[in-house]
Amino acid sequence: MQYSLAGRMENVKASDIREILKIIGRPGLISFAGGLPPASLFPTEELARLAGDILVKHGGLSLQYAPTEGYVPLREWIVKRLNGHWGMEHIELDNVIITSGSQSGLDLTAKLFINEGDWVFAEAPTYMAALAAFNLCGARFMEMECDDNGVIIDKLEAKLKEHKPKFAYVITNSQNPSGRTWSMERRQAFMEVMTRLEIPVVEDNAYYELCFEELNYRSLATFDPKGLVLSIGSFSKVLCPGLRVAWISGPAELIRKLVFIKQATDLQTSYFNQMLVYDYLCSIDFDQRVEMLCSVYRERRDAMLNELDAQALPGMRYTRPKGGMFLWAEFPEAIDTHQFLNKCIERNVAFVPGRSFYPQTQKNNMARLNFSCMAPELIHKGIRIMCEAASEELDG
Amino acid sequence: MQYSLAGRMENVKASDIREILKIIGRPGLISFAGGLPPASLFPTEELARLAGDILVKHGGLSLQYAPTEGYVPLREWIVKRLNGHWGMEHIELDNVIITSGSQSGLDLTAKLFINEGDWVFAEAPTYMAALAAFNLCGARFMEMECDDNGVIIDKLEAKLKEHKPKFAYVITNSQNPSGRTWSMERRQAFMEVMTRLEIPVVEDNAYYELCFEELNYRSLATFDPKGLVLSIGSFSKVLCPGLRVAWISGPAELIRKLVFIKQATDLQTSYFNQMLVYDYLCSIDFDQRVEMLCSVYRERRDAMLNELDAQALPGMRYTRPKGGMFLWAEFPEAIDTHQFLNKCIERNVAFVPGRSFYPQTQKNNMARLNFSCMAPELIHKGIRIMCEAASEELDG
Repeated sequence: MQYSLAGRMENVKASDIREILKIIGRPGLISFAGGLPPASLFPTEELARLAGDILVKHGGLSLQYAPTEGYVPLREWIVKRLNGHWGMEHIELDNVIITSGSQSGLDLTAKLFINEGDWVFAEAPTYMAALAAFNLCGARFMEMECDDNGVIIDKLEAKLKEHKPKFAYVITNSQNPSGRTWSMERRQAFMEVMTRLEIPVVEDNAYYELCFEELNYRSLATFDPKGLVLSIGSFSKVLCPGLRVAWISGPAELIRKLVFIKQATDLQTSYFNQMLVYDYLCSIDFDQRVEMLCSVYRERRDAMLNELDAQALPGMRYTRPKGGMFLWAEFPEAIDTHQFLNKCIERNVAFVPGRSFYPQTQKNNMARLNFSCMAPELIHKGIRIMCEAASEELDG
Repeated sequence: MQYSLAGRMENVKASDIREILKIIGRPGLISFAGGLPPASLFPTEELARLAGDILVKHGGLSLQYAPTEGYVPLREWIVKRLNGHWGMEHIELDNVIITSGSQSGLDLTAKLFINEGDWVFAEAPTYMAALAAFNLCGARFMEMECDDNGVIIDKLEAKLKEHKPKFAYVITNSQNPSGRTWSMERRQAFMEVMTRLEIPVVEDNAYYELCFEELNYRSLATFDPKGLVLSIGSFSKVLCPGLRVAWISGPAELIRKLVFIKQATDLQTSYFNQMLVYDYLCSIDFDQRVEMLCSVYRERRDAMLNELDAQALPGMRYTRPKGGMFLWAEFPEAIDTHQFLNKCIERNVAFVPGRSFYPQTQKNNMARLNFSCMAPELIHKGIRIMCEAASEELDG
């Protein structure tokens, strides 16, 4: 059959990462490829205990159809966290909608804003699955140049005025893939421009809580007098990804519209899962859990940085992330990471080539290295193997 | 702020049903409005026991990121059910993708086929939330006239040739809202036309299992030599809605594309929930559970039909469903059900006005009556009150 599909299908392809993950499930592999939080840190036993309790306590309510906005106690918990630790101050219940993972939040946001052919601005590099979600609505992408402190503000205003994007998509804390955290000055300057031009901002805060240093960097929503910022948050990285519970916070008027979109998209997120997340959050000291995760990840980041420093591959550069799960490596230009990956996989080491993280540019010598799901000694070993392979490639 | 939103937002509005459900949560109300399976029939205790076991048994796997296609053992269960009870015969693993509820299946299907302005054919009346999902991709709707046996085939071919729809959306078994089940002759004749014109068919089988009579009516996928049918199925009506686990079956080529779309839409459906559904299915005699549900619903349908027959409101007509959860009532033309609803709510009875179930037509004297979630004596009482109110309205 020759099917007559929608035009958007021309841009739809398998995610590089998900395809790589399928190939490399083999034992013994040192993988810097995934973006997985280590399963050993999931609160499996506590959730096992709570899951049964919820079904007994809430009976059918947890298994029935339920309001699209989400489970009120969980939304209240998020309100409190955003007003407290995230410094947002003015968040109320109507400013929060629960979504089925943050990917679903990106899908809903795309539907809210994007007509076919509309421009969306994004960092270079950026989170590829966000581009995939925006692609489904036919977005065109314009890159925002970045340095270690975030988006470079010079020239941004002119470019924004020229393309009039529907929104800018940014990850200001421990970005996936670059590991970059924006400075406070850059956040403020960026929001001054966006406020002046009245361009919405979609801030993806998946890694917000995973900050290894005493930074107190605040969300862009705290520099938002006009109500332009939608902030996406998630329990995937601080609790576990498999329950698929995340949220969007923002102006009540936009959240209300996102509720209508969600009704038509997936009706609701499982209440059972929302209750499970909520009851778990109530049963622990959340700050303490975050600190525990950060201390594990910090050690792994340090292992990766220390080994990269020790290897000192000529011409290789890499970011020094303040949090999150990833660092971004720039290999010498002679190395095409897409081909180099095969050489590494032969030696049982994997990473994700950087190419597909760019909205427009095709840089072929970049790689995303994940440090969250391997023990420090394996990180040392993997980086050594990778750097040796790169040396050979350069010498050959 | 004046936000510049996507054009699709002009068509996005709150679902009538979800808004009515919010208003009428009050105690003592006899509601024929919702589409809820009764929570008392959920296997709450069994799920409570299994949930803990799964987390202990599968550990982190149930809480980790996982393949988009879905949990293989659950997909295998579905394959077996479709080849067996549903009579499809040629379904394999690659023909099935798990979705986050059937609403999400409708969203993925819309994205697969619909460009803005494309025509979609649908029964009149049809399931309003499907129209909402298709609306998000900018569909235009063309109604297919129906009688008690399904879509009327005469004139259909000419209309299809004229509008060249991307697909036809149909609910062939115990339709929501009409309660209609297509005859086998009509299924065959419909698929002959669709096959000749090579127009895809999206068959929504949410109520397929809830058949109260010995019918053996087969899915449209069993009359599909060219691979045109996508079949949506769900555990919401036979197990519980709150876990948000459903599926789409169809040609492997289309399912593969739906996997890519799902990656960008919500990444995956919770594996924990999928495992819970699967382990529960393995722990019971599924046919026996379906028969139990059918016997409860059958009794409630009979209560509603018997009371409507007894009331014999002049000029009132209604369908006699062979399964599902709904019947469709046509009041005398003098009654506008949208206004009449208020009168009924004053008397503690609720239903959904029929208006919003039509893709194009505006028929004002129709109502959808749900019989699944009230005990028979309350159904008798509610129908009596409703018919008395209608008599007064007509006399006044």
